[in-house]
Amino acid sequence: MELIFEKHIKKYVNATQSEIEQFYDLFTLRKLKKKEFLLQKDDICSFKAFITKGLLRIFHIDINGGEQVLAFGIEDWWIGDFDSFYNLKPSDLYIQALEDSEVLLLSRENEAFANEHFPFSEKLFHKLLIKSHIALQRRVIDNMSKPAEERYFDFIKKYPQMAGRLTNIQVAAYLGLTPEFLSKIRGKLAKG
Amino acid sequence: MELIFEKHIKKYVNATQSEIEQFYDLFTLRKLKKKEFLLQKDDICSFKAFITKGLLRIFHIDINGGEQVLAFGIEDWWIGDFDSFYNLKPSDLYIQALEDSEVLLLSRENEAFANEHFPFSEKLFHKLLIKSHIALQRRVIDNMSKPAEERYFDFIKKYPQMAGRLTNIQVAAYLGLTPEFLSKIRGKLAKG
Repeated sequence: MELIFEKHIKKYVNATQSEIEQFYDLFTLRKLKKKEFLLQKDDICSFKAFITKGLLRIFHIDINGGEQVLAFGIEDWWIGDFDSFYNLKPSDLYIQALEDSEVLLLSRENEAFANEHFPFSEKLFHKLLIKSHIALQRRVIDNMSKPAEERYFDFIKKYPQMAGRLTNIQVAAYLGLTPEFLSKIRGKLAKG
Repeated sequence: MELIFEKHIKKYVNATQSEIEQFYDLFTLRKLKKKEFLLQKDDICSFKAFITKGLLRIFHIDINGGEQVLAFGIEDWWIGDFDSFYNLKPSDLYIQALEDSEVLLLSRENEAFANEHFPFSEKLFHKLLIKSHIALQRRVIDNMSKPAEERYFDFIKKYPQMAGRLTNIQVAAYLGLTPEFLSKIRGKLAKG
């Protein structure tokens, strides 16, 4: 079992070592090369992915070809398309590795099995979802109430590790800005 | 027990009549006059509220006095500030009745009691949260990828009942538009 996984579970719930190992056995390792896709539009998302290595993004492409990033994920985070996963709907999102990455995939069937057999499993997913939901609510409010520059500074303050691994274009597609605008902000910042 | 509550629970989970009644007894009824606040900034949100009657909004006021609506809630929906409720943080949001309303409040302690004693309780809240989270993800993507006019039409198509009970100003504060802009869209629509 990978240490990062074990630590992650213990951070959220009480479970015995043996339970965590059995839970871990329900996941499948998937290695991705940089730029490789884990999910493409019209696929049904058949997994929740726990990231043990690398950096991924989940994003949307609009009718004009513009990209909107719903989320980035690095080590110790989860990534997946909930709507497609739970409602068995063809996804309208893409998940792509931005670095060589490794993820542990939990299928719908194995999640159901885990929730039935391990008392901590549902609690874990509920806690994780509360955390994600709070972050997403904050983002909706900030997008409407804060100027772009402030949102960029919030982003690098909140996710310093991640910000250093992303290009201007990627961060701009998360914040809903043009890359040119973001580059101007970064230029101002560099000048102090 | 109110029928709307009973029906709501049965829509999501399997529970006996007696269990639903015991669950219902954990809630407290609160009546609100139009414009009355259920939560104000700096309060700690001590409840999840199930709406049995009326219409409420949960919103933010920015440093310039602008209002941003995180969500509206009508009959058969829930409303609350998750961040404040789960993390015991002073809220930076307001919850206000936009019509005379009635809500059933579940306290943090009673939710914990319910999750411990009724097998369906945690399942219910997990399912509700998945649903909210998917809707919020959709909103984040739409806000970045769709023009205002399209988002307005999506809103009235998705929530026809609610749209008819809201003013331009309220819908604009949800969509992140100026009321003037929304009024222009509605004008165009009226002309056909």
